[in-house]
Amino acid sequence: MRKAIFATALLFIMAQGSALAQVKPETLVKQRQAVMTLHGKYMGQLGRMAQGREPYNASVAARNAGFLDALSKMPWDGFDPSTKDVKSRALPAVFSDPGKFKQAADRYQGEVAKLVAATKGGDEATVKSAIGAVGKACAGCHDDFQQPQ
Amino acid sequence: MRKAIFATALLFIMAQGSALAQVKPETLVKQRQAVMTLHGKYMGQLGRMAQGREPYNASVAARNAGFLDALSKMPWDGFDPSTKDVKSRALPAVFSDPGKFKQAADRYQGEVAKLVAATKGGDEATVKSAIGAVGKACAGCHDDFQQPQ
Repeated sequence: MRKAIFATALLFIMAQGSALAQVKPETLVKQRQAVMTLHGKYMGQLGRMAQGREPYNASVAARNAGFLDALSKMPWDGFDPSTKDVKSRALPAVFSDPGKFKQAADRYQGEVAKLVAATKGGDEATVKSAIGAVGKACAGCHDDFQQPQ
Repeated sequence: MRKAIFATALLFIMAQGSALAQVKPETLVKQRQAVMTLHGKYMGQLGRMAQGREPYNASVAARNAGFLDALSKMPWDGFDPSTKDVKSRALPAVFSDPGKFKQAADRYQGEVAKLVAATKGGDEATVKSAIGAVGKACAGCHDDFQQPQ
């Protein structure tokens, strides 16, 4: 009887585990692409400010940096091996060289954290330079891991 | 000469202003839908925890609440009147009754803020009840302003 209960509990735990893992690959891709779309919204505006194509606004810069901080943590679990064959712009290197991909992701998150700190300091030149560094980290990762459009 | 410089500066400022306003309606819709997709990711998991369909994990709950806090501030400028005729699930009431829409949005953001506070307190029952309140605020807004699927 005890054995039966234990077996049932184990099956239940396994089922839960697999339920957790069973987000459809297409959903994972859609979710990580949603993060990139929103990055485009907020990083795009920061880029325009850094390049003087839009007036600099310190509070908008700080808000966008905060949003990017959250967004920069969201996409990574979406690059699950199960998504390898789903149509997207992710290059095979994402899955064949996960160490290098993680390194690029970490670099990017580090630059976003520096940008957040810069917007708290409030110095416009420092913020603009930090925006540039985030842009380079974006591009660095896209160059190696994302198919050009 | 001065008058000419002034006129040129004014034209430049107007051009910048219109550049800011000229995000394509389709892009605005895509961006606000991206927010909803990511809400689904993080709120979905919180809902499963609250309903006992996934083991409760306090640090994941706090992380997701922080993500929702950022996400809950992102979609609203995407409901620009220019998007009124773009195909989406937004009901006409979004544009015909913006006061009621704002009220629903504010209620939702308020419940997310309470959830963030609850995850900082760390009491599981309080967090689960706050998740339920966020869920109700989501549904309340969707009922009036989003076409069912």
